[in-house]
Amino acid sequence: MQKAWRNFAGEKWLDEVNMRQFIQDNYTSYDGDASFLEEPTEATNKLWGLLKDLQKQERAKGGVLDMETEVVSSMTAYGPGYIGEGTKELEKVVGLQTDKPLKRAFMPYGGIKMAEQACTTYGYEPSEKLHEIFTKYCKTHNDGVFDAYTDEMKLVRHNHILTGLPDTYGRGRIVGDYRRVALYGVDFLINEKAKDLRNCGDGTMTEEIIRLREEISMQIKALREMKEMASIYGYDISQPANDAREAVQWLYFGYLAAIKTQNGAAMSVGRISTFLDIYIQRDLQEGTLTEKEAQELIDHLVMKFRMVKFARIPSYNQLFSGDPVWATLEVAGLGMDGRSMVTKNDFRFLHTLENMGPSPEPNLTVLYSSRLPKHFKDYAAKISISTSSIQYENDDVMRPIWGDDYSICCCVSATQTGKEMQFFGARANLAKCLVYAISGGVDSKTREQCGPAYRPIEGDVVTYDEFMPRFMDMMEWLAGVYVNTLNLIHYMHDKYFYEAAELALIDTDVRRTFATGIAGFSHVVDSISAIKYAKVNIIRDETGFPIEFKTEGDFPRYGNDDDRADDIAVWLLKTFMNMIRKHHTYRHSEPTTSILTITSNVVYGKFTGNMPDGRPAGAPLAPGANPSYGAEQNGLLASLNSTAKLPYEYALDGISNTQTISPDALGHDEAERVNTLVGVMDGYFNRGAHHLNVNVFGVDKLIDCMEHPEKEEYANFTIRVSGYAVKFIDLTREQQLDVIARRAHGSM
Amino acid sequence: MQKAWRNFAGEKWLDEVNMRQFIQDNYTSYDGDASFLEEPTEATNKLWGLLKDLQKQERAKGGVLDMETEVVSSMTAYGPGYIGEGTKELEKVVGLQTDKPLKRAFMPYGGIKMAEQACTTYGYEPSEKLHEIFTKYCKTHNDGVFDAYTDEMKLVRHNHILTGLPDTYGRGRIVGDYRRVALYGVDFLINEKAKDLRNCGDGTMTEEIIRLREEISMQIKALREMKEMASIYGYDISQPANDAREAVQWLYFGYLAAIKTQNGAAMSVGRISTFLDIYIQRDLQEGTLTEKEAQELIDHLVMKFRMVKFARIPSYNQLFSGDPVWATLEVAGLGMDGRSMVTKNDFRFLHTLENMGPSPEPNLTVLYSSRLPKHFKDYAAKISISTSSIQYENDDVMRPIWGDDYSICCCVSATQTGKEMQFFGARANLAKCLVYAISGGVDSKTREQCGPAYRPIEGDVVTYDEFMPRFMDMMEWLAGVYVNTLNLIHYMHDKYFYEAAELALIDTDVRRTFATGIAGFSHVVDSISAIKYAKVNIIRDETGFPIEFKTEGDFPRYGNDDDRADDIAVWLLKTFMNMIRKHHTYRHSEPTTSILTITSNVVYGKFTGNMPDGRPAGAPLAPGANPSYGAEQNGLLASLNSTAKLPYEYALDGISNTQTISPDALGHDEAERVNTLVGVMDGYFNRGAHHLNVNVFGVDKLIDCMEHPEKEEYANFTIRVSGYAVKFIDLTREQQLDVIARRAHGSM
Repeated sequence: MQKAWRNFAGEKWLDEVNMRQFIQDNYTSYDGDASFLEEPTEATNKLWGLLKDLQKQERAKGGVLDMETEVVSSMTAYGPGYIGEGTKELEKVVGLQTDKPLKRAFMPYGGIKMAEQACTTYGYEPSEKLHEIFTKYCKTHNDGVFDAYTDEMKLVRHNHILTGLPDTYGRGRIVGDYRRVALYGVDFLINEKAKDLRNCGDGTMTEEIIRLREEISMQIKALREMKEMASIYGYDISQPANDAREAVQWLYFGYLAAIKTQNGAAMSVGRISTFLDIYIQRDLQEGTLTEKEAQELIDHLVMKFRMVKFARIPSYNQLFSGDPVWATLEVAGLGMDGRSMVTKNDFRFLHTLENMGPSPEPNLTVLYSSRLPKHFKDYAAKISISTSSIQYENDDVMRPIWGDDYSICCCVSATQTGKEMQFFGARANLAKCLVYAISGGVDSKTREQCGPAYRPIEGDVVTYDEFMPRFMDMMEWLAGVYVNTLNLIHYMHDKYFYEAAELALIDTDVRRTFATGIAGFSHVVDSISAIKYAKVNIIRDETGFPIEFKTEGDFPRYGNDDDRADDIAVWLLKTFMNMIRKHHTYRHSEPTTSILTITSNVVYGKFTGNMPDGRPAGAPLAPGANPSYGAEQNGLLASLNSTAKLPYEYALDGISNTQTISPDALGHDEAERVNTLVGVMDGYFNRGAHHLNVNVFGVDKLIDCMEHPEKEEYANFTIRVSGYAVKFIDLTREQQLDVIARRAHGSM
Repeated sequence: MQKAWRNFAGEKWLDEVNMRQFIQDNYTSYDGDASFLEEPTEATNKLWGLLKDLQKQERAKGGVLDMETEVVSSMTAYGPGYIGEGTKELEKVVGLQTDKPLKRAFMPYGGIKMAEQACTTYGYEPSEKLHEIFTKYCKTHNDGVFDAYTDEMKLVRHNHILTGLPDTYGRGRIVGDYRRVALYGVDFLINEKAKDLRNCGDGTMTEEIIRLREEISMQIKALREMKEMASIYGYDISQPANDAREAVQWLYFGYLAAIKTQNGAAMSVGRISTFLDIYIQRDLQEGTLTEKEAQELIDHLVMKFRMVKFARIPSYNQLFSGDPVWATLEVAGLGMDGRSMVTKNDFRFLHTLENMGPSPEPNLTVLYSSRLPKHFKDYAAKISISTSSIQYENDDVMRPIWGDDYSICCCVSATQTGKEMQFFGARANLAKCLVYAISGGVDSKTREQCGPAYRPIEGDVVTYDEFMPRFMDMMEWLAGVYVNTLNLIHYMHDKYFYEAAELALIDTDVRRTFATGIAGFSHVVDSISAIKYAKVNIIRDETGFPIEFKTEGDFPRYGNDDDRADDIAVWLLKTFMNMIRKHHTYRHSEPTTSILTITSNVVYGKFTGNMPDGRPAGAPLAPGANPSYGAEQNGLLASLNSTAKLPYEYALDGISNTQTISPDALGHDEAERVNTLVGVMDGYFNRGAHHLNVNVFGVDKLIDCMEHPEKEEYANFTIRVSGYAVKFIDLTREQQLDVIARRAHGSM
């Protein structure tokens, strides 16, 4: 170890796993500009060229290049695989999920039905042998969940008031601390887990202790398998990495173990940039690495993150459009001691968007603070303007809660790296819940009694006094069935699809958060505002069902920096969160919520009827915490101000805001645009806002791209949607139209 | 249903499952003699002849006739199977565990290693395909247990102070209420379980509720599969049985479902005799069945119980010698209302031992009371004397606790039929524990520090005052690690090897008992007596280890009706049971204990060192609650009186006592012998004793059988050992010698 750890400072991280301490003891802040950055090497260009070609073929084949049907994915299911023929020597970072690039693995444990449906959807024939195994002998997560579901849970699912539940796919959102593999080597980690196993419990075998003991044993096996996987590629990762190249490779093997064994919706990479910079700095100082080689390492690592693929089913793709994997990766942020954690490596990661062009993955996330070095803020803004591939999250609101070593485990959700995991919970459609309060729990789409048969509003007008107690009751009900549905799902996921490889790289005494989420946020706020400030007339159909609303008079809307509406927004968030908190949560997890819809706002909207705010039945909901389409009347800054009022403490799982600004609105040249964008973000985040997806383009470009997807320039044209980035051409036409319909702010 | 239930009385059992009520409302007590019994039919003789021939072949082949290696056992894994070619029409009850008679199924869920070892032990090659499935994809019970075991648990297991734990085989001891299939038909049972699923939990998804919901779903699936299994044999069991033959067949299908899916140590049949008599009586009255046909039905059903086989491994066979399955089946007993529950069918079941000769299975158990009809007591005693195949359990002590519809789930353990299940717990070797108290936790065999390093006895004499606190501490420790080891085992059994088919035939709101057990009972009692009443000198080896004991002076021994020793016995049982009760038990189960060793007394003894009572290292322990060999000096009745003093309330899992009486001691002719034996049992059970295995033969016969096992008369020569019956020729020579060494009482 002494050799591998040469010239590293600090002691506290030496004899037990303490990544944060190692980073704090060793990183080198960088407040210079981007001029040191290097162009791609020949190897990078060649490999990226091959990959772009494969991506083109993938698109030509309908979205899937190749798919496994005979082999169950595992860390050691395949021999070594490389991007191209004879590229082994060119690849500074090796390792594929399967035996071929972009070939999707067969992962049955989340649900054999889904794994098979993914095959047949793309024209592949599932294996009969594996079908027999996973129906006759091995039960999968999905089967466990449906065995235990109550009739009510099936009903709320069927009526889409709870949607996107991780009962048909891996829950994801667990970020292994892949850096540990590099710093400590796997043998050290196995020893630490063996110690934990010995110290697990006082001898009284409660079910909690028994389960945890079995889990630790599974983690130890996973670590052993990780070594075997690396050895297939000719590497021995039992000992710590000796230099930057090994550090990058070891870390990637840790991540590869995760994506070979789990197909979670979000498979984040985590906060690796500052950590890896420490190794690169040492090599640069030792003269064993040049900047060009350093950039090449990062380019190749990022290339691997761009290649992550999972086999998905149509209903999944509807929710999460454009084949995302949320290989989320953070740069920047400040330390608890106030030092900037920006390193040269943070520039290098952003620079991959220049060296290899824009790309949705990895999901590059800047942990923002107005106190970040000016050069870095400018560079990030510049990349945003040219690629629309970056998201920003407010380090100043997250740091006090999660410290200075958190990772974003999906779109916007922070977890302490290596210390925490999240039970992902998708979303409750509060827009539907609002209509249920009026209809007495009857669904406007199916006309089923889905919610409890509470008294409906029987008059011709939705009065505030009649509405509010009904809405409170209905939300209480929804919060209860929601939390309990998730309790059940996560119990089964632990039972049938435990994330041994990821949790092997997380502390045994893991903190668990229990994420819920709100969909239809702005429509509920605006509808309540309409009920309160205007007159909402009910139009009933022949059966008396409140099919439509005619709202007379004006009312304030969320997104205009108008406290009358924004106060309702704050109230709604706090009220729902407090209702969630009432309930028992699985494994003593801490409940949180998010205002985040990903691209599922379109599907959610399809199943949501007319609303008092004027949103017609079937129209997409506004995504995340965005104001409703057309509601914003006072420009970008007023809109941002409204969102910034939402208290992060009540939505620790994140508050997603996606904005599009036309380049002209930012300024006349790059310098002016960068300057304006940085100013907007400084102001927005200083107000305590949590998140911003920044898109810089005009609607014209979107329309042209939708109509001419074959144009070379659009092959990797990336836009930020709610929580992630996506190639615009990979969205469905419906979703493209939704994105186009959103306001592109033409002025501040 | 009206047709199937014609002429049945009562209402309470009509619209919900209530077997006890149905039986109480409908059975016909019989207090006549055995003269109505019929000889075997031609079909019975032919089938039994075929089976005897197969048994001979089985023995010639080393104990296993045939074994499956390619098919995983399940209810529907095989097509129909019959005893012989073209015997389908002869068999009044159809259904085999596999496709051929006596062929043993492949059951991997308890542990793939054991399933494979069972194959290789008997020269069969396990399937590579199944090996891959059950090592790569499906985890089995045994693997789960060993993942979670603590180092201490492995140590106590390795040192054999805890032995026979169900971590390498199915726990068994769960008696499905197979009668339900006959009375209600499977569709009714499915509906009841579906109701239970709807009513399971108030919506709050605690882990307990989630698990139970999944289990109910699995039970419903098992019921559906049961119907499919029956349809393979051409039967539709969705509706109730219409007559006696269907009732017998339906009931057997229920049992067949259990033995096709589980390989528990004990797979009891339960209390079916009185129930089936109701159907037979109705048919007799309706003139659709003759007594000859009735006996044939019972003979054929019993033949099927005689055929039950499981693939076992050598270490299992050492513990449970002679290939037992504990297809335990009860007759007699009294109702809570005082009526005798003896029916003609109870005679018929005992009569099978005459019609088809003696047999260890089914494990025929008379629920005894001195108030049973005299004719029945006489007939049972007669069969005992001629076959040594029956055991007796005291209905008068069990009825107040378990009611009048309990079944014996293994050797001696009562559970309410259809309302209860047991977590089987094997045994703690208290004899070793006693030596640990002297050695300070160091094992005399391995010299490992197995128990806690408490202060040893350091002088040359084991004084009572020094010994007792040390023994108490050591027992406290053992009770704790014992209960917690079982907690862990049963958690894993539920997780990986859930008994869906059996529990589908038990109430959803099942009561669970948590069975522990004591081995070495008499040796501990006598050793404490020696320490108290004589002088126990310690002989130490060169390392100072207390290797031997020289006891000077006389001391009272358990088994002579001497309160000085018997009080220690009572104290020991109560003390250990109270220590067990202190601990957390899995799923709120109720702890119990037994004094029962089965044939494992020989193996347990091998690993137990010298003891103060004079028992030499390695010698077999006395079985169950029996006095030590040679300790009894005052005749059979004094011995029985000692055992009868043990309070059943503290050993609800049973107190096993096995006695052998030479025919001459009972009298000069059959009538005298019957009379004496009934008198002995009346006296013994009226004193509150729990159990008696009755063997009637002289030692000469045992010796002759051991030396001439090939003699035709010995092919089915059955003896009662601790808790079950076994063919003497199937015991190992070591065990045969052990049985021979036991006192055959030559006088009362």
